[in-house]
Amino acid sequence: MTYQPPVRDHAFILRDVLNIDQHGDLPGFSDAPFDVVEQILDAAAQFTGEVLAPLNVVGDKNGCELDPATNTVTTPPGFKDAYKQLCEGGWTGLGSDPAYGGQGLPYVVNLAFSEMSSSANMAFSMYPGLAHGAYSAIHFGGTDEQKQTYLPKMVTGEWTGTMNLTEPHCGTDLGLLRTKAVPQADGSYKITGQKIWISAGEHDMSDNIVHLVLARIEGAPAGVKGISLFIVPKFFPKEDGSVGERNQGVKCVGLEEKMGIHGNATCVMQYDDAVGYLIGEENAGLKIMFVMMNEARLGVGMQGVAQGEAAYQAAVAFAKDRLQGRSLTGPKNADGPADPIIVHPDVRRMLLESKALIEGGRAFLFWTALHGDLSHLHPDEKVREKASDYMGLMTPVLKGYLTDKGFQVCSNAVQVHGGSGFTEHFPVSQFMRDCRIALIYEGTNGVQALDLVGRKLAAKGGRAVMTFFQEIDQFIGENDSDAALKPFIEALSGVKAQLQDGTMWLMQNGLQNPDNAGAASTDYMHLFGLTGLAYMWALMAKAANAKIAAGSSDPFYTTKLTTGRYFIERILPDAASHLSKLKTGSATLMALPAEAF
Amino acid sequence: MTYQPPVRDHAFILRDVLNIDQHGDLPGFSDAPFDVVEQILDAAAQFTGEVLAPLNVVGDKNGCELDPATNTVTTPPGFKDAYKQLCEGGWTGLGSDPAYGGQGLPYVVNLAFSEMSSSANMAFSMYPGLAHGAYSAIHFGGTDEQKQTYLPKMVTGEWTGTMNLTEPHCGTDLGLLRTKAVPQADGSYKITGQKIWISAGEHDMSDNIVHLVLARIEGAPAGVKGISLFIVPKFFPKEDGSVGERNQGVKCVGLEEKMGIHGNATCVMQYDDAVGYLIGEENAGLKIMFVMMNEARLGVGMQGVAQGEAAYQAAVAFAKDRLQGRSLTGPKNADGPADPIIVHPDVRRMLLESKALIEGGRAFLFWTALHGDLSHLHPDEKVREKASDYMGLMTPVLKGYLTDKGFQVCSNAVQVHGGSGFTEHFPVSQFMRDCRIALIYEGTNGVQALDLVGRKLAAKGGRAVMTFFQEIDQFIGENDSDAALKPFIEALSGVKAQLQDGTMWLMQNGLQNPDNAGAASTDYMHLFGLTGLAYMWALMAKAANAKIAAGSSDPFYTTKLTTGRYFIERILPDAASHLSKLKTGSATLMALPAEAF
Repeated sequence: MTYQPPVRDHAFILRDVLNIDQHGDLPGFSDAPFDVVEQILDAAAQFTGEVLAPLNVVGDKNGCELDPATNTVTTPPGFKDAYKQLCEGGWTGLGSDPAYGGQGLPYVVNLAFSEMSSSANMAFSMYPGLAHGAYSAIHFGGTDEQKQTYLPKMVTGEWTGTMNLTEPHCGTDLGLLRTKAVPQADGSYKITGQKIWISAGEHDMSDNIVHLVLARIEGAPAGVKGISLFIVPKFFPKEDGSVGERNQGVKCVGLEEKMGIHGNATCVMQYDDAVGYLIGEENAGLKIMFVMMNEARLGVGMQGVAQGEAAYQAAVAFAKDRLQGRSLTGPKNADGPADPIIVHPDVRRMLLESKALIEGGRAFLFWTALHGDLSHLHPDEKVREKASDYMGLMTPVLKGYLTDKGFQVCSNAVQVHGGSGFTEHFPVSQFMRDCRIALIYEGTNGVQALDLVGRKLAAKGGRAVMTFFQEIDQFIGENDSDAALKPFIEALSGVKAQLQDGTMWLMQNGLQNPDNAGAASTDYMHLFGLTGLAYMWALMAKAANAKIAAGSSDPFYTTKLTTGRYFIERILPDAASHLSKLKTGSATLMALPAEAF
Repeated sequence: MTYQPPVRDHAFILRDVLNIDQHGDLPGFSDAPFDVVEQILDAAAQFTGEVLAPLNVVGDKNGCELDPATNTVTTPPGFKDAYKQLCEGGWTGLGSDPAYGGQGLPYVVNLAFSEMSSSANMAFSMYPGLAHGAYSAIHFGGTDEQKQTYLPKMVTGEWTGTMNLTEPHCGTDLGLLRTKAVPQADGSYKITGQKIWISAGEHDMSDNIVHLVLARIEGAPAGVKGISLFIVPKFFPKEDGSVGERNQGVKCVGLEEKMGIHGNATCVMQYDDAVGYLIGEENAGLKIMFVMMNEARLGVGMQGVAQGEAAYQAAVAFAKDRLQGRSLTGPKNADGPADPIIVHPDVRRMLLESKALIEGGRAFLFWTALHGDLSHLHPDEKVREKASDYMGLMTPVLKGYLTDKGFQVCSNAVQVHGGSGFTEHFPVSQFMRDCRIALIYEGTNGVQALDLVGRKLAAKGGRAVMTFFQEIDQFIGENDSDAALKPFIEALSGVKAQLQDGTMWLMQNGLQNPDNAGAASTDYMHLFGLTGLAYMWALMAKAANAKIAAGSSDPFYTTKLTTGRYFIERILPDAASHLSKLKTGSATLMALPAEAF
């Protein structure tokens, strides 16, 4: 069973739910009316399904190899050639600025391609994924010269990029960063320090690797206010755009042994007087890095959905194929030795839970990504502002909630497989192992939850969340006489009230004692995620109903409604549980001294 | 950080909560007053902590190796010697029948040792674990001659054992079994077929391996009514108790590549006219195998707790050691560069959730295991009957609920570690990967849930669950004026009412449409697990309160109460969610045709 990119579901969201053609007068969108997008999705499906997916197991089994003599890394067999095809197909520049050779397509369209890549081969997709993050940071914070030097090569994929934040003693808490930068007479810096867990830090697929490195300029203030960002190229760019000499001070000195994503090189990068170039202002490196980070966080939320989708597909195929036992209501495959296990309610429970989470999560991702486009492109400042507010508010929810749920979906898929799921002869073990990192990197899910309650919720006086509540209220008001939509409206109305209740509790109790906010944060994030999905399911049900009302007999739409009902009946009840937990406060949580654990 | 066996918690449950000394007049218990048990626990802690725990990573990294030329399996370095020490220490016969050289200690005491072994080294502990299962089956169903031939050697550990159920096309559904047995003139049988996923199927640690093999005697009825059980020794036993010739027809032809438990040999066993001996009646093999299976299922529930405990300990050590960020309420380690992450409420949430699930789960296991002892040993038939009812009812709950939660605890531990948790330099990845099999083998958790609602609940007119409700009511009645116990009594009363509600719903709707029972099964199992833990936490709180009232200032008891409050505030709210879900029935779940997934 190979991964089948869910083009139909992508098309449904982009056309029927989000109606991207309504934005046809915006830059990027004007080049991508839905019929063009559909062709792109088909081509993306072909490339990811046929080129990347077959290399997924290869990557897992072979991993990457470091030659300690040369500090070079060899990627798994086939990766290099697949990367060449990725570049030749123009996929690396799909969403990039046309000024530097990109195709300038909307972010939301690019996300559809990224999801397919990640489902097909998460470890592989991280190489261009990190490169695009580095591209974004340079695009946002670089000088014109830096942009001209690096961006065109990164758009074509000839050069890739990395982000270097973590050090052995310093991950979440970047204030502890020690890597130092010493100014040189020529305006460059010499960078010294060790960075760990650098995804795609060294490999054999691109001509050059553009490292973005956080470091502290000698004499800079302590803590996060003294951190600057540097471009440290593996090879120095020459004026003609080719690569010149090796930047001798930067090298990969180790590869992590990991639970998953074996096909991606997770590097220990050693900087010893490596030549670097300041990007942006001194001591303002984090601001630029967070451009990259926010994009990365939404991308990680996407990985949760993507691994979930791939795992779900494998589980469905297994459940239809595996004959074992009989339906509780009498044989459904009387001529065979047993029924396929998809007849069993508890197997369906795992599959439908997965399906409802994936499709709801995908819609939530795409809906947010479209706001990302609008936040840059829309002519109306009010629309840009709202869209920007939403991007800020939803990013930690998407990252935290969708990866928690994506992992659950992968674990469901293992469970559907029974003993086969625990062996490495079936693909689901890898999906689960690969997916597990998504709950951790780019800020653990706990850090996302804290970002949500501690920063995003309160930003601008809570404007973003208030706007979200108003939008939901308006939707409910406009649709509450629609009988076909009734269960979805009721469910949305209920969970929105619960989220408001939780938000109020946080406002009253979190300020008074910050530990209350910390204690509530993960449950609040999940309550928020459930509300987002309830809204998406209402939007999708409305779109499906419209098609059915217009005479469509395509089972896609009735299936969508059933899946949505499953979400309401069997996933949404968790909202009450999260609300109840978050309102218990921090007293019990903080009562024990450390030694009592 | 090495695993520290939780002797203190074991002692608390055995002495203060279960008061095992009250059974001091029963066989087995008379040899094990609590002070003796305490010495056994200390010795067990020393052996498992010092001998088995250091080999856990070794087993994961090295795995087992099959020599295809000789069909022999080499276990990881150190395993063979550790097994020798296990035997020399008498640990293999701890709970075995003195008639065959065992020490005859209570099952509940044996379970404490098994938990420590499994925490220290799950893959290793499965070798003696499977052997004990095979011992139990022969003890239950073998002839006197078979018992005399095999049991003494299995008690000393010189011989180990296996259980051979699964075939490539047949796991849960044993009715599809194809392995055949042909009667021979001498009363033996020739066994032919392939068995897969045979844990400890071949290895280098014991002198002989006693395979228990399910097969179909030629001409037997189709389905589960035609399955017999056979003893197939690797080497034929000689009259003097030594091993004789090799049983040429049985050999290991493959090892599974797995997500975890690499130190255990998961074998493909090929039987080609292997000589086997019928155990028990023809066509009644499943009855004996289920003796082995039920013991194994409780043991798997224990593995969930055991891996959780080991992972939790690693997470606590990391959380105390890792300095990152500052407490939300101001520095707690002002002289250091940052605070230990255990100051953060969300880290504590993961740790306390883990602690509350492990300690509650352990108590539930021990409480049930004590009923296992009483079901055999108590002179009062009424007590035996009730205990036996409980064993039947609780076994699927313990297996399913405690492994689901054990895996969640292991995943929490990975999360507390952040990026370190995803690498193989820290132990938690292995705990999570090893633990994952516990949700699958000995019947997937979905099968457990179905066993619970489809068989155990209805057995004898629902007598077991009614007795359980009465016991809880009585406990509530006896303690509802105890102010110190109030939150625990209220919580128990609430969840018991929810479980009754769910039980009533199942009785009304499950009979009418079996798919309703199947659809409700997993949520019902979790609701049952939560009720069991709420009862255990009430029992533990009562015991802790008694110690405090008697003047103890040991923080162990106040910590116990805080952990119990955490359970009530932040775990028990899931009960309402499970109840709500299970009452939605099967309509939505069964609505979609297979092709709609």
